[in-house]
Amino acid sequence: VRNIRLLLEFDGTEFKGWQRQNNVRTVQGTLEDAARDLFGSDVSIVGAGRTDAGVHAVGYACNFHVQSGLPCERIIPALQSRLPEDVVVLGGSDAAAFFHARYHASARRYVYRITTAPTALWRRTRLVVRHTVDVPAMNEAVQQLLGTHDFTSFMPAGTGVNPVCNVAEARVERRESLITVTLEADRFLHHMVRTIVGTLLDVGRGRIGPEQISSVLRTRDRGAAGRTAPAHGLTFVKASYPRDAGTEPPAVSPPGN
Amino acid sequence: VRNIRLLLEFDGTEFKGWQRQNNVRTVQGTLEDAARDLFGSDVSIVGAGRTDAGVHAVGYACNFHVQSGLPCERIIPALQSRLPEDVVVLGGSDAAAFFHARYHASARRYVYRITTAPTALWRRTRLVVRHTVDVPAMNEAVQQLLGTHDFTSFMPAGTGVNPVCNVAEARVERRESLITVTLEADRFLHHMVRTIVGTLLDVGRGRIGPEQISSVLRTRDRGAAGRTAPAHGLTFVKASYPRDAGTEPPAVSPPGN
Repeated sequence: VRNIRLLLEFDGTEFKGWQRQNNVRTVQGTLEDAARDLFGSDVSIVGAGRTDAGVHAVGYACNFHVQSGLPCERIIPALQSRLPEDVVVLGGSDAAAFFHARYHASARRYVYRITTAPTALWRRTRLVVRHTVDVPAMNEAVQQLLGTHDFTSFMPAGTGVNPVCNVAEARVERRESLITVTLEADRFLHHMVRTIVGTLLDVGRGRIGPEQISSVLRTRDRGAAGRTAPAHGLTFVKASYPRDAGTEPPAVSPPGN
Repeated sequence: VRNIRLLLEFDGTEFKGWQRQNNVRTVQGTLEDAARDLFGSDVSIVGAGRTDAGVHAVGYACNFHVQSGLPCERIIPALQSRLPEDVVVLGGSDAAAFFHARYHASARRYVYRITTAPTALWRRTRLVVRHTVDVPAMNEAVQQLLGTHDFTSFMPAGTGVNPVCNVAEARVERRESLITVTLEADRFLHHMVRTIVGTLLDVGRGRIGPEQISSVLRTRDRGAAGRTAPAHGLTFVKASYPRDAGTEPPAVSPPGN
């Protein structure tokens, strides 16, 4: 039995997230259906993490076990020909038998896109906000999340999930009318990126000062953080794996904007 | 009677171009329907130029005459509320009575987006090419179009239209996996940008040398140029007007990527 690792891009607009659910269009379900059609048997696909309905991905990692003699360079186009245009297989490779796209991911990176101009062309991938946005203040605020913290304030209350995450990268940048929030951490809690973005937008419009993010963290109270920002601005950019987690990643071009 | 100038953004995916046609969804038709609903009378809207089916715009200029006491800051949201989400009114202002969005435009700018990586998320705005693309060669080639030339080779044969255009800006750039072709000229012929891009792609894959663009121009033969590249990679970015063409442009944020 082989263990195939894939790198995916998907437009989340028409998907109810990654995870398979009955009678709902999901990325996992769509991919498992394509794989069953290709290999003639049921295939269970493990993803790097759940994504919410409407969230996009440009470098989503997943893996599945299958009995097949097809080389990866033939599996990729054969799968692609069975997929709709909003899911693309960017690459694929054989992985060690133990490789697990969720358990072995050592870091995940997300980008959230915000624009202060109304937009038709980029409406599927950017949150439009009609207030002024102080990007330097947002960037100062997000830096305070770097390092290991209890993120209870940025997750739904009462889940009982371990709330400690180690944030390795955090920044807010503007390029022309596009503002991007980039976050990388070992793990993310449910709605965590979107709730951080909602809180940063409160900083951006001057409702709270950038220095208050530290106290929002310390209160460990979801009520202290801002709203959960809409899903469509969010893109899963990358999952990282240790070198010993079974093969190198599939070679692909770096994702563009 | 007032003369209102608007700046528009539209996602061309679901439109059969700018120009109104019977029983077909076009940007002009959609906008005229919204304006008739708002003002209670027929409105003729003049656009900065025709765009082909599938071509997008982020800074498209147009104007229309109307009898109305509504200030522009109320016309914009009132029109917007009558428009589908793939057309956005970015700005609007009162213009001099003689202002004409097509006749007075002194320059038009287009961007064409190409990617060598397959993509789901950007499939509506980028042409995916699966061959290697030599961007410096394409940039060297496109420079030869700068200045005033007869562009007969880059337009459909036999139209009888004046083929002389003055190209003020021409460049090809790469940023990560995104390659952009930027062209600005006083005027463009039908399919001209798309045929230039098709020819540049022949340079990019080594079918012709970058220096051959000059001879393609000189032959004045459509058969000497490359294929017309698909519409969905093309975006109308800006129309420029002389200062004396009736009011300053509506103030808006610069378009992002």
